[in-house]
Amino acid sequence: MQTLDVALGERSYPIHIGASLLGDSALLAPFVGGRSVAIISNETVAPLYLPRVRESVQALGKQIVEVILPDGEAWKSAQSLERVYGALLAAQCDRHSTLLALGGGVIGDLAGFAAATYQRGVAFVQMPTTLLAQVDSSVGGKTAINHPLGKNMIGAFHQPRAVLADTTTLTTLPPREFAAGLAEIVKHALICDVAHLAELEAAQSAVVARDAATLARIIAHSCRIKADVVRRDERETLGIRALLNLGHTFGHAIETELGYGVMLHGEAVAVGCVLAAELSAELGHITAAEAERVRRLLAAFGLPTTLPPRPAARLIEHMQRDKKNADGIITLVLLKRLGEAYLERSVTAARLHDFLERHGARSDAARHHDRSPT
Amino acid sequence: MQTLDVALGERSYPIHIGASLLGDSALLAPFVGGRSVAIISNETVAPLYLPRVRESVQALGKQIVEVILPDGEAWKSAQSLERVYGALLAAQCDRHSTLLALGGGVIGDLAGFAAATYQRGVAFVQMPTTLLAQVDSSVGGKTAINHPLGKNMIGAFHQPRAVLADTTTLTTLPPREFAAGLAEIVKHALICDVAHLAELEAAQSAVVARDAATLARIIAHSCRIKADVVRRDERETLGIRALLNLGHTFGHAIETELGYGVMLHGEAVAVGCVLAAELSAELGHITAAEAERVRRLLAAFGLPTTLPPRPAARLIEHMQRDKKNADGIITLVLLKRLGEAYLERSVTAARLHDFLERHGARSDAARHHDRSPT
Repeated sequence: MQTLDVALGERSYPIHIGASLLGDSALLAPFVGGRSVAIISNETVAPLYLPRVRESVQALGKQIVEVILPDGEAWKSAQSLERVYGALLAAQCDRHSTLLALGGGVIGDLAGFAAATYQRGVAFVQMPTTLLAQVDSSVGGKTAINHPLGKNMIGAFHQPRAVLADTTTLTTLPPREFAAGLAEIVKHALICDVAHLAELEAAQSAVVARDAATLARIIAHSCRIKADVVRRDERETLGIRALLNLGHTFGHAIETELGYGVMLHGEAVAVGCVLAAELSAELGHITAAEAERVRRLLAAFGLPTTLPPRPAARLIEHMQRDKKNADGIITLVLLKRLGEAYLERSVTAARLHDFLERHGARSDAARHHDRSPT
Repeated sequence: MQTLDVALGERSYPIHIGASLLGDSALLAPFVGGRSVAIISNETVAPLYLPRVRESVQALGKQIVEVILPDGEAWKSAQSLERVYGALLAAQCDRHSTLLALGGGVIGDLAGFAAATYQRGVAFVQMPTTLLAQVDSSVGGKTAINHPLGKNMIGAFHQPRAVLADTTTLTTLPPREFAAGLAEIVKHALICDVAHLAELEAAQSAVVARDAATLARIIAHSCRIKADVVRRDERETLGIRALLNLGHTFGHAIETELGYGVMLHGEAVAVGCVLAAELSAELGHITAAEAERVRRLLAAFGLPTTLPPRPAARLIEHMQRDKKNADGIITLVLLKRLGEAYLERSVTAARLHDFLERHGARSDAARHHDRSPT
């Protein structure tokens, strides 16, 4: 087992990474106070891993509440949140109760937001069972639900008490979900660690074969990158943490436009990373060959790399609602070079429109309207 | 104008109390950054005060979004919250937008929670227009909405940037609402300032006549008590802030049992304070005459002081969901003496049941069930 620390003063917490952590009740014990523990999971993950988590909680003598939601991004909703609140209240969970988020990013974000807001905040532990959640969403305390008008629009910063990343769970992960996690790993490397990018290229076939030792190594490396960024800018106010949104402005727009759950979050981020690299090349920061290097690695990991043919104007509309924006100006995360991301605020909606049309988006009749200045 | 400071480090903020503050755009200016301002109000308050607030925001050159909700505790709901989120998103409000809560406790709590959770947190300013909100709910950063299973069950700690308490708004306050605010003022005195209790008794007729100078004085005094408690225990983890819940464990149970909005929050708190005083007398902490002194002042302020005839078991069920509880034990705030509250955790559900039956609650067939240990 490897342990990293997310150093955030009194909100610091450990990330434990290793095989078969979920059944380890001694590992869990320090993080669950109070009388009751609520396990939030989904219909795909629960049959596989809930029994061992339940057992380890029972061994600690806790009352257990279980909320099993349907699987998928479409359920990261106000309705699911209400189901969690209702179950907690019906079981008379109090401020000392602990929530366990057992699942991928959807469960982690939703359970984390429930923990942030139930009785004005209770403790929670992340038990990520997808690669994406293990390297990204379970680390850093961003919690949220989606809104029909935008992804992650409703949320809070609420750090977990611990992250228990059980690498054994990756063996049951469907290929698309596995690849989606790799997209975030590539993203972390692109943002601030070009050496890790080279490692990923070198280890490409071992990664795709899900070699256990290789995965443990790259997960720990990727978590370390993320934890370091979070440590430097916990609440995303300094323009550092925002860099983790590389590929996300495009990615969120794609997800919102397609409807949640059609494309996986990591898949949309992969397309977004390719677009960010290509736009960075157009701006002269990186070469076309470097942009192609990014595309090639993501494609090798089984990820989509082209924009679905949706109207450019609609995508831009979604991007204009992005949380990074200020004063109506679209803020993009682009690459100064491979391994160094930066915030770009000077690309106009009109230029973006042309860029998207040249990269697979549909042109549209409403174009003259949508190109009006914002 | 009087100004107090709520001293909370980087989250410190001023409370301005005085006549005609709502139209003062210079007073507002330091607290609204960004491009857009969302004013959240209700159908009763908006016709009276929205025009002058709108004008002062317009004078600052901001884009304005207005969300006018129906009036009443029943609207402190997930549905209303969704209306606010929808309006903010439709207007493309970003993280730099500011919410203004123009109304009573319901609007302040709801708009505050919307601000706490919109895009993981935006700034907000409290503009309380009821006495209750001016002395209590707008100060201290507790935000929340109700859940069908309990009051204020979903919420967050999120401090405002400023509180602008315009005492002119009290002239239009209906008598019941005015009295409801006095209940919280009496409550503050009971918790930690017996001298203020005597002042309130002495000023009784000037208070009831809404004498402007008298009101400004007691509002400032009451805010000072509240701000001091909040300063010592911002997130209610030290057992100090919890004392502000004097009368609230009973009060919330009454409100939940009757359905939100039947009895005003302050009215329920008045009944709760009387019950807390009477139980404190039964436990030998204060005399029956002192409990009667509490009841008499609240009655003189036009407040209800007796429990509505609802089943004791139902009330206890609601109390068992109270946020102050831990490990299933009901935590009450009682009086060690007048001007000194404390947390009491040794009164059993059975004893409470008998107490409530002797103080106006109905006995009930299901009693044997509800008295089972918890």
